[in-house]
Amino acid sequence: MSDDGKVMLSEKDQPQRWCNILPFLPEPIKPYLSPQTMKPATPDELRVLFPMELIKQEFSSEEYIEIPDDVLQLYRIYRPSPLVRAHRLEKALGTPARIYYKNESVSPAGSHKANTSIPQAYYNKQEGVKRLVTETGAGQWGSALSLAGALLGDMEIKVYMVRVSYQQKPYRSILMRTWGASVVPSPSDQTQSGRALLATDPNHPGSLGIAISEAVEEVATRKERDSHYALGSVLNHVLLHQTIIGEEALKQFALIGEKPDVLVGCVGGGSNFGGFVIPFAKEKLLGRRDVRILAVEPAACPTLTKGIFAFDYGDEAKLGPVAEMYTLGHDFIPSGIHAGGLRYHGDSPLISMLKKHNVIEAVAHNQLDVFEAAQLFARTEGIVVAPETAHAVKSAIEEALKAKARNERKVIAFCLSGHGNFDMAAYDDYLAGKLENHVHPEEKIAEALHRLPIVNA
Amino acid sequence: MSDDGKVMLSEKDQPQRWCNILPFLPEPIKPYLSPQTMKPATPDELRVLFPMELIKQEFSSEEYIEIPDDVLQLYRIYRPSPLVRAHRLEKALGTPARIYYKNESVSPAGSHKANTSIPQAYYNKQEGVKRLVTETGAGQWGSALSLAGALLGDMEIKVYMVRVSYQQKPYRSILMRTWGASVVPSPSDQTQSGRALLATDPNHPGSLGIAISEAVEEVATRKERDSHYALGSVLNHVLLHQTIIGEEALKQFALIGEKPDVLVGCVGGGSNFGGFVIPFAKEKLLGRRDVRILAVEPAACPTLTKGIFAFDYGDEAKLGPVAEMYTLGHDFIPSGIHAGGLRYHGDSPLISMLKKHNVIEAVAHNQLDVFEAAQLFARTEGIVVAPETAHAVKSAIEEALKAKARNERKVIAFCLSGHGNFDMAAYDDYLAGKLENHVHPEEKIAEALHRLPIVNA
Repeated sequence: MSDDGKVMLSEKDQPQRWCNILPFLPEPIKPYLSPQTMKPATPDELRVLFPMELIKQEFSSEEYIEIPDDVLQLYRIYRPSPLVRAHRLEKALGTPARIYYKNESVSPAGSHKANTSIPQAYYNKQEGVKRLVTETGAGQWGSALSLAGALLGDMEIKVYMVRVSYQQKPYRSILMRTWGASVVPSPSDQTQSGRALLATDPNHPGSLGIAISEAVEEVATRKERDSHYALGSVLNHVLLHQTIIGEEALKQFALIGEKPDVLVGCVGGGSNFGGFVIPFAKEKLLGRRDVRILAVEPAACPTLTKGIFAFDYGDEAKLGPVAEMYTLGHDFIPSGIHAGGLRYHGDSPLISMLKKHNVIEAVAHNQLDVFEAAQLFARTEGIVVAPETAHAVKSAIEEALKAKARNERKVIAFCLSGHGNFDMAAYDDYLAGKLENHVHPEEKIAEALHRLPIVNA
Repeated sequence: MSDDGKVMLSEKDQPQRWCNILPFLPEPIKPYLSPQTMKPATPDELRVLFPMELIKQEFSSEEYIEIPDDVLQLYRIYRPSPLVRAHRLEKALGTPARIYYKNESVSPAGSHKANTSIPQAYYNKQEGVKRLVTETGAGQWGSALSLAGALLGDMEIKVYMVRVSYQQKPYRSILMRTWGASVVPSPSDQTQSGRALLATDPNHPGSLGIAISEAVEEVATRKERDSHYALGSVLNHVLLHQTIIGEEALKQFALIGEKPDVLVGCVGGGSNFGGFVIPFAKEKLLGRRDVRILAVEPAACPTLTKGIFAFDYGDEAKLGPVAEMYTLGHDFIPSGIHAGGLRYHGDSPLISMLKKHNVIEAVAHNQLDVFEAAQLFARTEGIVVAPETAHAVKSAIEEALKAKARNERKVIAFCLSGHGNFDMAAYDDYLAGKLENHVHPEEKIAEALHRLPIVNA
């Protein structure tokens, strides 16, 4: 470790495999259901959307999965990512705790999302698929898949971007186009589900659930049959690829002889959180490690803290697989907080299972508290984080202040999932005192939960 | 070196000193003149603007200057920066040349500018100055000084931002404010020189020369006498701090046993270029190294390729020191190209001297060619570069294609001075076919050169 606490991994120490926690879960994840039949989805239903290798990974019982050489080579553009001790933040807080962050903002797309966009594009290309369709909300995932398409080469990327984000964040779609992708605002006139919504409102603002429906519909119904779908969070194979974060962090902590007492990450679908904590959670499940693991979500979309564990649809038009997870109901529309990446009604089935069995805890924060924390972080550590990441910063600070009150030398580590270079309008609102807290009324949540396809709570 | 050619320096190899080329120049740089008397500026005139330690560095005859520990610690937030082999770009060009780039976009402010903003804030704080005033055009420098102010702590930063950039790039000023700085569009009503211009045009678009005048005027006339001025380029001490780039690159090339045949950097005031090439240029001057060094500027502001070597004012209102340099005339207003950081009428006296003695060469490129190169780079290497940096990318590609035509295995290295996350509007214009080339008419340059204070060519 250097004086200032930046822990770099040398190339020879770079992890060569992803960590699969599926075989170690306290209870197996129930199979996905077909949205038409509510019976377990057949492999053929999944093969329309995904390449065989990713389907295998989705259900794998191997403890580790080797990372292909070509993927490792592309990872090295920005990996290993640094683990950094936040000395100046600690000082500002006057805490005896040691705070570390794993900096995933270093990828050219600015977040952890490239960790899975690169292998997803790679496996598709291996199976001869040269066209991928996806959705994006705030734009982190769409950017990362566009980047992966450019890096793999000879790969076409089409992105359905939630219209309200498309309009509010024009720079994100330009970034995707610079990498060669095509981007359309959703709902669009290019799909049946999009046209139906435009008929009700020509300026429909869209939602992540709607954009997923459009992308899935295009892939399933396109005459050329040349495309696959790609998802940036929620699914097991996505979290698997993200475990590169935690695998590196394990080695970095070992290098400096430090053991984190608390791990913190923000949760929307669960991919940066899962990627960071899974290698530690596995050790915890095996009784080899004692660590608190804390998932942080917005009070405006409190899936893990106020949702229920049940089967639900993943998308608005009920086209994709139905999964058992914590959910607020597939037609739950959270308020327009700036952390667009955390505005998803459901959660990764894997993270949901860890929560159900108390391997992890969850907490929800208000928007104003979260931006106050992000500003303190920017002014002490220099990095202006994404609004999503700001949730993790808030909890890390809260834990550090608790340690101060108890005079405990805790080690706190959080995942800095992305930078906020494309989210400056949110900081502008915060600095101008225009930001509001949005707590979702409990009765609206209860109402949305009544519309679940199968209630098994 | 890793398979993909990312060369990282370990902490123990991190350079601990800056490289001063002043004692090795073929001809000494003439002293700055006072704009009032046209006689050599007195130390007192400079002490109004800068702390003593920076004035000493400005005229130092030491071969190396030790970097203070506190500065080294803050450098480590993002340094050493990686030296990367651009394998995928090489493949796309089909060139036998090896192309490397030194990636300075990794700082939290997104460019090399933090390399000097941090020591400038540090030395001012050491001498008890807790308020710094500066100007910024495109915003890279203003951001970097705001970041440094936050990192040093207890330091107030005030930025005069060229009004047209302030309006076109709102995200840049929000970024500075997030770090705690105050930002005003220039010309402003806060200075005499600003008010005079607003009287002629209340929506005056401003220029870098005007913003410098306002910052210098505020520092020199402020009643409290509590502020210093900070400049992000041109001066010797600024280029000195930037030599951390080249000192690292020297070690990185030595590590992999590679010798660059051509070094490339974009030039506005000359700070990233100087910082990258000076350690190599010193070796060249001492006869220890044979290397071509190529400065790249925009055709719209062709200081080194079409200016003359003469004494000229550095700012519009003739308040700052007069320096001998390549210049297009202090009232030369270049067209509104997107590379705002390269729109300066003059050039670093140090770089000018190296050019005068043919230690370096210069070339100018058109805006469209430059963005075409940047797009190819984004789609092969993943990084969307700043419009300024795109000029260096263009020349690196040109050199690689020359090597291909001659079947030469040249080693080409360029400085990737910053990312383009805040310049997406420029890429949007390029993708939409709206970008134009702006070549400045020769007669306008000749006209501007007639207004030099002393013509000694």
